[in-house]
Amino acid sequence: MASKLVAIIAGVGAGTGASVARKFAASYPVVLLARNPDNYESLVKEINGNGGRAIGVSADVSDQNSLKNAFSQVEKEFGSGVGCTAAIFNASGKFTRKPFLEVTEDEFISNYNVSGKGGFLFAQASLPLLLRSLDHNPSHPPTLIFTGATASMKGSAMFSVFATGKFALRALSQSLAREFGPKGVHVSHAIIDGVIDIPRTKEWMKDAGPDAKISADAIADAYWHLHTQPRSCFTNEIDIRPWVEKW
Amino acid sequence: MASKLVAIIAGVGAGTGASVARKFAASYPVVLLARNPDNYESLVKEINGNGGRAIGVSADVSDQNSLKNAFSQVEKEFGSGVGCTAAIFNASGKFTRKPFLEVTEDEFISNYNVSGKGGFLFAQASLPLLLRSLDHNPSHPPTLIFTGATASMKGSAMFSVFATGKFALRALSQSLAREFGPKGVHVSHAIIDGVIDIPRTKEWMKDAGPDAKISADAIADAYWHLHTQPRSCFTNEIDIRPWVEKW
Amino acid sequence: MASKLVAIIAGVGAGTGASVARKFAASYPVVLLARNPDNYESLVKEINGNGGRAIGVSADVSDQNSLKNAFSQVEKEFGSGVGCTAAIFNASGKFTRKPFLEVTEDEFISNYNVSGKGGFLFAQASLPLLLRSLDHNPSHPPTLIFTGATASMKGSAMFSVFATGKFALRALSQSLAREFGPKGVHVSHAIIDGVIDIPRTKEWMKDAGPDAKISADAIADAYWHLHTQPRSCFTNEIDIRPWVEKW
Amino acid sequence: MASKLVAIIAGVGAGTGASVARKFAASYPVVLLARNPDNYESLVKEINGNGGRAIGVSADVSDQNSLKNAFSQVEKEFGSGVGCTAAIFNASGKFTRKPFLEVTEDEFISNYNVSGKGGFLFAQASLPLLLRSLDHNPSHPPTLIFTGATASMKGSAMFSVFATGKFALRALSQSLAREFGPKGVHVSHAIIDGVIDIPRTKEWMKDAGPDAKISADAIADAYWHLHTQPRSCFTNEIDIRPWVEKW
Repeated sequence: MASKLVAIIAGVGAGTGASVARKFAASYPVVLLARNPDNYESLVKEINGNGGRAIGVSADVSDQNSLKNAFSQVEKEFGSGVGCTAAIFNASGKFTRKPFLEVTEDEFISNYNVSGKGGFLFAQASLPLLLRSLDHNPSHPPTLIFTGATASMKGSAMFSVFATGKFALRALSQSLAREFGPKGVHVSHAIIDGVIDIPRTKEWMKDAGPDAKISADAIADAYWHLHTQPRSCFTNEIDIRPWVEKW
Repeated sequence: MASKLVAIIAGVGAGTGASVARKFAASYPVVLLARNPDNYESLVKEINGNGGRAIGVSADVSDQNSLKNAFSQVEKEFGSGVGCTAAIFNASGKFTRKPFLEVTEDEFISNYNVSGKGGFLFAQASLPLLLRSLDHNPSHPPTLIFTGATASMKGSAMFSVFATGKFALRALSQSLAREFGPKGVHVSHAIIDGVIDIPRTKEWMKDAGPDAKISADAIADAYWHLHTQPRSCFTNEIDIRPWVEKW
Repeated sequence: MASKLVAIIAGVGAGTGASVARKFAASYPVVLLARNPDNYESLVKEINGNGGRAIGVSADVSDQNSLKNAFSQVEKEFGSGVGCTAAIFNASGKFTRKPFLEVTEDEFISNYNVSGKGGFLFAQASLPLLLRSLDHNPSHPPTLIFTGATASMKGSAMFSVFATGKFALRALSQSLAREFGPKGVHVSHAIIDGVIDIPRTKEWMKDAGPDAKISADAIADAYWHLHTQPRSCFTNEIDIRPWVEKW
Repeated sequence: MASKLVAIIAGVGAGTGASVARKFAASYPVVLLARNPDNYESLVKEINGNGGRAIGVSADVSDQNSLKNAFSQVEKEFGSGVGCTAAIFNASGKFTRKPFLEVTEDEFISNYNVSGKGGFLFAQASLPLLLRSLDHNPSHPPTLIFTGATASMKGSAMFSVFATGKFALRALSQSLAREFGPKGVHVSHAIIDGVIDIPRTKEWMKDAGPDAKISADAIADAYWHLHTQPRSCFTNEIDIRPWVEKW
């Protein structure tokens, strides 16, 4: 059976992407994109087992053909008229912190390929489906959300690789918000300023006290709130940080 | 009967303040502050008639004694141990747009007295009650929200009066967020970038198409979302604008 | 003898103000404003002794009448048609760093009275003379410069008093730049992000290594550069910090 | 004869690059980089004819090997111990303004290759020479300047290509300023907010009145001022715009 509206989440792993997927799966079929199927398989099973509907598609956001194939699969699965009600770009290049003169060209480019080019390609693939969702009288304006970081706002010493990609992603988000807002698409950028509490960060900040890492579920709640905003009240940028964060 | 937790909204009129009051009144007794009782009386009646609880107190946020009296009334009404779960500063100086050399000192100061000094005095009065709310195991971290404007970010030509006050309020919000976040109080600043759809603006922007003015109820939903964020995920600044706004 | 063009510096002490005065005195008669004549008397003598021309006027920038008297004295001294080629607002409220709940209303207001109201009053007094300087075919566009600080951009914890004033001053500067730029007046804001190397800070940062404090003469050079920019190339904001500053 | 210190300007054409080259050539031998020798040949001749010293090297800033060859030629010409006293990155990707869904991947990447990757490669090539200049007791701290644009600060509608590159360049500049400032290198970013008055823009803005386009020579003066700042007083960002510019 074809569903008229789906949410598509790029960059699903054990953290924010998974929380966002669960949150949006309560209301929409969800499409989970990750390069490695290991990153979404158990989550797809979990959502489908809980009465939701999810599919996982292996895709590399930095590769136009790979993304095109992924979106073709979405249409094959949900019908060629399917609309996207929410597209979440949660992919991120490898975090790199090193003296500038030791950064290789490959490191620099490979990060940009995800945060810069990847954001561009994902937006180009998803915007036609976001616009198309307007034909289906959606409950909420179609929403395109980009996940940023502290490095979206500040180029710290030894963070040039990460910050150039995240600055670029923020520029993209602003530009799209201004072009597609008046067409009815809500584009928003979230500055995640702190460590997210995920399996990979379990051993970090052990002495920082309770709730010093950001709850991925709470990020998902914030993204859901952005999605539910009516078009008379779009938030185009939020910051998110734990109560004890220095900023 | 004494209630343990109340929400206090300063600057209640026919617009954002009223919407915020209704939203928070669904969960808490609310205290409505305005200089002129005309601004809150019918709303107090409405909330109390709908099964909520509201009191109105006449107060001038730019006058320390007036504010102290208002907060004394809150304690008299709700008990001296009452905590504040949400304090919303929605007061704003008179909007002034005129050539700089025609601005009088009185105009300049009277605006600042609301946005700058008023924000300061309201924060000093409400923070002890916000901190005290933590003793009552609140469902959500106590929240202090300041309502900003386009002029919080940009000093446009002929807007010096309004922008100096709004910039000062944003500085205050940032400083308090950094000092009181680690104490458990969520301080947030909302940049309202557009015309709010209220009775006073009914005749404005008639040719701008649907939803070109911001829904005050949607602002209230955004403030409520801020209030419900757990302390591991505080948003300290959001922007809000209609889909068609130029920015 | 009447001079056609003068530079006026508000907030002259032993630091930036004195360096700026010396720099501009090489090209223009200078008017030095400070509340306490002790702050300018030796400098006036020094400049006049070195072949320049300087007068000192006791003035409180937060008091409209005091400023009016000061500007009357300028006209009395230099002729009623005198133009101002550069007006530098270097006054600053008392630096206050303390827990927010311990700040008194007087502290809050007295800082604002210098940075907010003082900036407003000084701009209103000097802009007519800045505009008038255009009648004298000046070598450089008339220039109005406001001295800001780290706290112009960031409201740090316990800095609400200082930051609200400095944010307000930045808003003022932006608004005036946009209104008076097209009239030929160059308005600029300098973010001084670091400790200035003046007698008062002599004992500070002794272990920070060489040049860790900002040279006041170098600030003066930067202000002079701003002054010399042609109207096709106005810089409206610069930041300034020592090489080793964290930011 | 080997010269100990040179200035290197990437992105030399008929506009800012040429003005910067002339300005710095008054004090240093200059190296002019451009892909097309047509862009520097007459300028090289002009500078050498006026008693200065200039060489032009054909180089593509987005190609690591091309840049390496160019810097090898610099060492061959000026000696292997040559230091760079000022490196100016003035290259810019092709200006692109079009609906987002019509942007090709090639357009997106080719712009980034100049502004993002090009900035990275130029910085990696020039920083070792900038650091080395410190061995030669330079009159001024070695200076690395990146030329930005309005799009460095704001992602306007239909400007995603240009803005992503320019945001990335700004991130790079900030990160390098923080890492290399404490090593004695002055890194600065200039936001050129307006149309530059160069042959290519001759027919633009004809009705905008005098001086509505930015003088390239005045930009060069600003860059020279940045270069002359002592390390106790580094400006890391300036904006530049004509007096009549809306911003």
